[in-house]
Amino acid sequence: MPQCVRIIDNCVEMLSCTRDARRAGRVVGLVPTMGALHDGHLSLIRAARNETNFVVVSIFVNPTQFGPNEDLDRYPRMREQDRKLAAEAGADVTFEPQPAEMYPEGYATYVYQESLAGRLEGEKRPNHFRGVCTVCTKLFNVVEPDIAYFGQKDYQQSVIVRRIVRDLNMPLEIKILPTVRERDGLAMSSRNTYLNPQERQQATCLSRALSLAQQRVSRGETESPKVLAAMLEEIEKEPLSRIDYAEIVHPDTLEPVNQVETGSVALLAVHIGGTRLIDNAILRL
Amino acid sequence: MPQCVRIIDNCVEMLSCTRDARRAGRVVGLVPTMGALHDGHLSLIRAARNETNFVVVSIFVNPTQFGPNEDLDRYPRMREQDRKLAAEAGADVTFEPQPAEMYPEGYATYVYQESLAGRLEGEKRPNHFRGVCTVCTKLFNVVEPDIAYFGQKDYQQSVIVRRIVRDLNMPLEIKILPTVRERDGLAMSSRNTYLNPQERQQATCLSRALSLAQQRVSRGETESPKVLAAMLEEIEKEPLSRIDYAEIVHPDTLEPVNQVETGSVALLAVHIGGTRLIDNAILRL
Repeated sequence: MPQCVRIIDNCVEMLSCTRDARRAGRVVGLVPTMGALHDGHLSLIRAARNETNFVVVSIFVNPTQFGPNEDLDRYPRMREQDRKLAAEAGADVTFEPQPAEMYPEGYATYVYQESLAGRLEGEKRPNHFRGVCTVCTKLFNVVEPDIAYFGQKDYQQSVIVRRIVRDLNMPLEIKILPTVRERDGLAMSSRNTYLNPQERQQATCLSRALSLAQQRVSRGETESPKVLAAMLEEIEKEPLSRIDYAEIVHPDTLEPVNQVETGSVALLAVHIGGTRLIDNAILRL
Repeated sequence: MPQCVRIIDNCVEMLSCTRDARRAGRVVGLVPTMGALHDGHLSLIRAARNETNFVVVSIFVNPTQFGPNEDLDRYPRMREQDRKLAAEAGADVTFEPQPAEMYPEGYATYVYQESLAGRLEGEKRPNHFRGVCTVCTKLFNVVEPDIAYFGQKDYQQSVIVRRIVRDLNMPLEIKILPTVRERDGLAMSSRNTYLNPQERQQATCLSRALSLAQQRVSRGETESPKVLAAMLEEIEKEPLSRIDYAEIVHPDTLEPVNQVETGSVALLAVHIGGTRLIDNAILRL
């Protein structure tokens, strides 16, 4: 049976669409994506389908979260397939605004978070989180969801989005769902398509390092430097790997911790050849 | 007949109150204030009463829009009188949140506008508009008004608020109402209470200078430097005056214009003794 999804390409229609849905008693779920949907996105859409009764999937490759030398232009775009996958997973609407509508000539208003956005990804990718916070605020205002869904794979992003929602009193709930992985452990990411076969094989070093970290902690090692050393060693086994950062941090403040506790988060960013990948794991004692 | 206003002091109750009102078919108007209500505020409340059928007046002396050496501590506070005046002018609710709820420990999320907030007031009062944009965003999220009302007296503020609403797709309309003046021309402002009788008298130099500017323009003078010179001369007649800035700008970009056109805005900030006052006029050829 073919699934059907309504395609909306402008903000006015989008807002009136979800307002109609809410007036009809529906609870609205939003899954913000940049397209190139994979099983990680689909798990968010399915969760939205289960927990709400009107599901909007936004597909927008947001220029303001890319740095000048990053992969905005080559970021994978596959609109037809995205619509089909979104519909099959339970989306009612795909929201596909044009960059010129989202950021018209003279655009100059930004949302940012001072205390969490300067470290880790934010340190390596200046203005990245300013772009994320800004586009999320815009999407939340245009869709007016009751719940928005994010993946834990972008751990720092999920913490920051939760914080701006709380700080700015945005009237919605943020849900963070577990990272979905390939069978060999690699975290699902639209950027995995950049990897050639050799890189693809070596890319498993991120999840292997995180598993190893959990193993060390389970065996009683709670000193972060020692756990991190084991992770780095695992990653450095791969000749195409180049570590960008590896840290164990407090789950809310994202500040490095010296002693691992249950809930501490191990975060990794690693270049595999020309592709930069991130991954993380919430550790348990 | 005594007027009655409902007092709400927390965000959860505020949101549920206006959601109930909207569900009952009401159109919600918001008048954001820092209290110490004067006839300027009351004209906004009356307009909201005329154009909507559920009127919220927020009263919150917003700390993030004051600089470290400004008048946050001595800003006039007169809550009982504010409630009475708001009720008489047609408010249904006064929203009076506590600073600790609006900016809890660790607060670090801000909204800012890059292109309009750096000049004029923004140049003299760093972070002022970041505070204004942030508190307006929060109030809009907590009250969910259909229309919010601002006074033209804070001209730059009104342009910036309109811009962030457009840029961030906030689902509300901003209305700007004319400045209300004392009989001798002084623009209504809560800060006028700081003036001693001598200063109060000399404070009329702002509105006199603006009237003079319009007069010169009406007589055919369209060169901004000449119009500004006449304004400055008028202000400098008063021994207690000290000019902070005087500019004629484009109404939307706030960039200085060399030739006055219909719609150009003359903006003034002048210290009168220890009190800093602002005023403006939209010029017509």
